[in-house]
Amino acid sequence: MRICRTPAGMNAACRDLRKGGRTLGLVPTMGALHEGHMSLVTAAKTDCDAVAVSIFVNPAQFSPNEDYAAYPRTFEEDCRKLEQAGVDLVFAPAAEEMWPVVNTTFVEPGEIATRLDGASRPGHFRGVATIVARLFNIVQPDRAYFGQKDAAQIAVLRHIVRDLNFSVHLIVCPIVREPDGLAMSSRNRYLSTPQRERALVLHQALAAAEKLATSGELSAEVIRHRLQTSLAAASDVRPDYVAVVDPDTLLPVQDVSAGALVAVAAWVGTTRLIDNLVLPPRTKA
Amino acid sequence: MRICRTPAGMNAACRDLRKGGRTLGLVPTMGALHEGHMSLVTAAKTDCDAVAVSIFVNPAQFSPNEDYAAYPRTFEEDCRKLEQAGVDLVFAPAAEEMWPVVNTTFVEPGEIATRLDGASRPGHFRGVATIVARLFNIVQPDRAYFGQKDAAQIAVLRHIVRDLNFSVHLIVCPIVREPDGLAMSSRNRYLSTPQRERALVLHQALAAAEKLATSGELSAEVIRHRLQTSLAAASDVRPDYVAVVDPDTLLPVQDVSAGALVAVAAWVGTTRLIDNLVLPPRTKA
Repeated sequence: MRICRTPAGMNAACRDLRKGGRTLGLVPTMGALHEGHMSLVTAAKTDCDAVAVSIFVNPAQFSPNEDYAAYPRTFEEDCRKLEQAGVDLVFAPAAEEMWPVVNTTFVEPGEIATRLDGASRPGHFRGVATIVARLFNIVQPDRAYFGQKDAAQIAVLRHIVRDLNFSVHLIVCPIVREPDGLAMSSRNRYLSTPQRERALVLHQALAAAEKLATSGELSAEVIRHRLQTSLAAASDVRPDYVAVVDPDTLLPVQDVSAGALVAVAAWVGTTRLIDNLVLPPRTKA
Repeated sequence: MRICRTPAGMNAACRDLRKGGRTLGLVPTMGALHEGHMSLVTAAKTDCDAVAVSIFVNPAQFSPNEDYAAYPRTFEEDCRKLEQAGVDLVFAPAAEEMWPVVNTTFVEPGEIATRLDGASRPGHFRGVATIVARLFNIVQPDRAYFGQKDAAQIAVLRHIVRDLNFSVHLIVCPIVREPDGLAMSSRNRYLSTPQRERALVLHQALAAAEKLATSGELSAEVIRHRLQTSLAAASDVRPDYVAVVDPDTLLPVQDVSAGALVAVAAWVGTTRLIDNLVLPPRTKA
């Protein structure tokens, strides 16, 4: 497994991997790899002739008051996992390699970037869109793998891939959960033991909403209300957003018969967690 | 010579052309091809194994009050010239193919896009940056060819290629002029015979500025003043900007000893024309 530290070196290494029409998969990460990330690597290994993983904690997607400095960095452990999984190439640039001078060009995704996490984290999706566009340009992958946990991110990335004609297929892999249902996240390690227990309420609230929908409820407002009351039952959990939206546009839906993304974000202590599920379109009885 | 009408068709055709490591050159144009464009094609033919030319009058780089509708479209004549020049592939999408839905993602080049033509034409360079990024993604060329006449555009494009890590080399070709010195432009055909004569003042003003610099003048302000007085000598010519700037940042310079871009834009009747020259760095005596 080769590790590249500069965009130019990575670009050349990826050209080599793609030679002779071999397909290349990219798994963009911020490191602190867990089973969720590794499921993306496994999917890429299954689909593609070669697999590249990027590990870069992207400052442009953090607000000044967020956890950029504290974000877990476990590079050596990450590399052991990736090597074991048969990854060909790791891109781990220093921040100075990505920003040798002040970057003033941004990929601006428009309105969609102001919804869900984009509403709570202004500029976040501009930062995500810009770094992902840069990774696409450096790696030029055939396929890129993202987790369903970041549902709003996926909508934004589909949007920029379409609008800017990127020649890459976005592959979305299911959320990977702990045995008790908590969605895996690099930020889960911030949680104390009692917080870790309370964090389960996100998954439980989604399960309650799903049960309601499965039992025939079509009103997005009723489902949203159930989510809110479920979340409110837990102490020291402060909801950020509770959304029942179109998964492509992230705009609120009135009823869920055409399918819907049900998404929550909540603060557990000082840790912000997200989780979601997709309600399938309702087949007429 | 093959003509592609859709982004997906063009992308596939370009993949074919690049097979086996063949190099691909792209010449992005808005059609109405003149000898300036054809010099780019000739350069691409010399450098690359295959050459693609795009012909697309990009609405996103015109303001509502500009000449988008009137911009000359001479597609059949353009194709004859390109075929004769040995071009492999022409990309000529309909506007509906490029914008099947409302495009809300833009490549925002930042401050540099507000200088020179960007100051006179708000949003122009955002439109240019976005369409060029899209063409790069569709074609994935090894090299892309632009004319020095659009000096500010070149600075903006160098900036986005660097900031977004596009894997493409920008090649800049010299301005091609009519025998009397007028820079070739698709917009020259808007000029009446007397306007065509008066338009020469742009070239003459630049020549006067160059002579001044060559004779030892180092002050950007003095050179700029000479340009302004030269332009003012012509009736029915209204200067838009007169700039002596750093060619990379487009910021004003104080003296020209390190080299400078001397650029003018002026309205001749209702036609806006641009021209420029680059003063080389002064070697110490």
